[in-house]
Amino acid sequence: MQIDGARLMGHIDALGRLGVGETGRTRLAGSDEDKAGRDYLVGLLREAGLEVVVDRIGNIYGIWSMPENKGLKPVMCGSHIDTVINAGQYDGCLGVLAGLEVIQTLREQGFQPARPIAVVTFTNEEGVRFQPDMQGSLVYAGGQPLAEALDSRDKDGLRLGDELARIGYVGTIDPGDIVPECFVELHIEQGPILDVEGTQIGVVESLQGIHWKRVTFHGAQNHAGTTPTSMRRDAGLAAAQVNVHMRERALASSKLLCTVGTCALEPNAVNVIPETATFTVDMRSPNKDLLDAEDAGLEDYLRELAAASGLTVESEQLTRFDPVPFDEGVCQRIEASCQARGLSHRRITSGAGQDAQMMARICPTAMIFVPSVNGISHNPREFSRSEDCANGANVLLDVISGLAQ
Amino acid sequence: MQIDGARLMGHIDALGRLGVGETGRTRLAGSDEDKAGRDYLVGLLREAGLEVVVDRIGNIYGIWSMPENKGLKPVMCGSHIDTVINAGQYDGCLGVLAGLEVIQTLREQGFQPARPIAVVTFTNEEGVRFQPDMQGSLVYAGGQPLAEALDSRDKDGLRLGDELARIGYVGTIDPGDIVPECFVELHIEQGPILDVEGTQIGVVESLQGIHWKRVTFHGAQNHAGTTPTSMRRDAGLAAAQVNVHMRERALASSKLLCTVGTCALEPNAVNVIPETATFTVDMRSPNKDLLDAEDAGLEDYLRELAAASGLTVESEQLTRFDPVPFDEGVCQRIEASCQARGLSHRRITSGAGQDAQMMARICPTAMIFVPSVNGISHNPREFSRSEDCANGANVLLDVISGLAQ
Repeated sequence: MQIDGARLMGHIDALGRLGVGETGRTRLAGSDEDKAGRDYLVGLLREAGLEVVVDRIGNIYGIWSMPENKGLKPVMCGSHIDTVINAGQYDGCLGVLAGLEVIQTLREQGFQPARPIAVVTFTNEEGVRFQPDMQGSLVYAGGQPLAEALDSRDKDGLRLGDELARIGYVGTIDPGDIVPECFVELHIEQGPILDVEGTQIGVVESLQGIHWKRVTFHGAQNHAGTTPTSMRRDAGLAAAQVNVHMRERALASSKLLCTVGTCALEPNAVNVIPETATFTVDMRSPNKDLLDAEDAGLEDYLRELAAASGLTVESEQLTRFDPVPFDEGVCQRIEASCQARGLSHRRITSGAGQDAQMMARICPTAMIFVPSVNGISHNPREFSRSEDCANGANVLLDVISGLAQ
Repeated sequence: MQIDGARLMGHIDALGRLGVGETGRTRLAGSDEDKAGRDYLVGLLREAGLEVVVDRIGNIYGIWSMPENKGLKPVMCGSHIDTVINAGQYDGCLGVLAGLEVIQTLREQGFQPARPIAVVTFTNEEGVRFQPDMQGSLVYAGGQPLAEALDSRDKDGLRLGDELARIGYVGTIDPGDIVPECFVELHIEQGPILDVEGTQIGVVESLQGIHWKRVTFHGAQNHAGTTPTSMRRDAGLAAAQVNVHMRERALASSKLLCTVGTCALEPNAVNVIPETATFTVDMRSPNKDLLDAEDAGLEDYLRELAAASGLTVESEQLTRFDPVPFDEGVCQRIEASCQARGLSHRRITSGAGQDAQMMARICPTAMIFVPSVNGISHNPREFSRSEDCANGANVLLDVISGLAQ
């Protein structure tokens, strides 16, 4: 069995033309542009003969059930169709539209599923307008109360619940009323590994844990021309030393990523030794023990460096998410499909957050990645080749049909 | 012979009370507060029986001459009485008021100088309101045309020439009409060395050269979670490496100071690898060859680091002043005075810019430093002990009287 690649890409291109305005392609959750994308998707689901259900947080389900399997837990796939500001057209859309394509193909081929098959698009995955991100799947998986989620406000004070009602996407069932048997999400990698290696499919076995810290060193503001090196208490130098140190840690382990993405010095003058340096550290690993150990190691390093440099240091934990392991059984089904189809593949970790990480709380879950050219995402230059998208959809076809048998 | 320490400190305290307002003690060049300070000083010079002369850039001279030495080049001392915003009361005021104190003491003691002795206060040493700094002495030494200096404008567009005229301090002689035989400037150290070592007098044999650069690395903006360490082009990391490298260079030489005082990352987001890092490097040394070699070494390091890190780099020279050696003969007179008076002393380099560096272009020049408690300057907490100020003034007395004999 093969999905119809031309039909899939036609849908991706058509959805990608919606919401294009002054800020490029932008469909923020609960906006008029989000409504346009949802309306287009619902039209496709109806045309395909699926039952369309919307829950109270605005998640949309397209369900294919038969009298023989009605009432059984569905095999579920999907992702999200909301976007960041000035986005590409692939991102979550591929996973949703490929889910529809899989169901259409199975129906056309006369496949008889033992369970219902559902494709879902989750509300507000991107978290740009309302926080937290991955909100629709978080609520679905029981991680945030519905009322609290509907009460999320954007920077203009508008409620998510009101905005969903305004665009006609507050549904009648409770999130969680549809209990999934399992969940599979096809997504672009959003990173360069598959593209650089020339690998066709990523078998996503885990999602990285993320620790964010904000660190502030306090030293002494002194004259750059009159203060001997030995008498300096240079907060900016310490911040630089931490950046260099964390890169050394990351180079020492293939399972650790570290990024110093922000830095501010005070008073930030050419001829004044910085009194204060504030910066962030983003640490990620698929291995919880490693991530916790590196976090503790960083704390030790900060205290030792401050003591040796005549500084004081404060560190604040901004974010701390444990890694999410995906289901080994589902991963093996993805690998089996790749082998059967002759697609090159590798185990990989998702560096970004995904709806699948929420779904993993409630059912066996894994993800399929296809290459992002040059690793670019969240950008109009985001691009995945049609043949790679079709490969991913065919693997999804095999995994979903296998799970529904 | 001893100066009158109580009289000197009384004058410093009185001048220090002028110009105290919302922004602390602030007497910017050409302001009403500057006028108040100048009026006070001119009153003291007249009371002491000195001839008061103002030149066209507003430098004020108090001259003690006698019929026997009139027409000879004067021995000159002095400094400046303008201040930064929210300043201390010592800084340049000590050198001007101690110069007056030296002349008063010599007159009272019946000293017969072979040459006239003059004390000067130079216009706009601080350079806060009008640029460049050390402007009055720069014009005096022929380093900037008078018309150009008078045409300097503050941020409100007001001309220095107009502001000096408004407060009554545009004089009738040209800067340079009074040709000095030699120049000696007493000043607070503005750094911690003498205070930390417990040394009473700094014999300032040179003034550091200063090179300022602005450096920008350009890399690639990528996702902190999806970009493997080996594929990163992290401009922020490179900036940190330069900071650490320059500290290593400074630790390797007692004649080199390096400071990274400013840094800005773009896009400056926690989870985005910095695409651009812009920072400054302030390098200082009293040794011109060393400073030039370190400057060239930094340029090499920047290019090698950029090439090794997949970055491009630009560096812009913002400032490049060669070191200024002071006059060895004057330095030896300072040392001889310290020895005769039993004052501990050491050779030292001025880390900050000074009027004396301009005067060194046209006559034998050196400086005397007294300790700044905790090295603090340009700050209301700036403090030098009365006994240290008196020690410095007594050394100035010996050097000036010796030079005028």
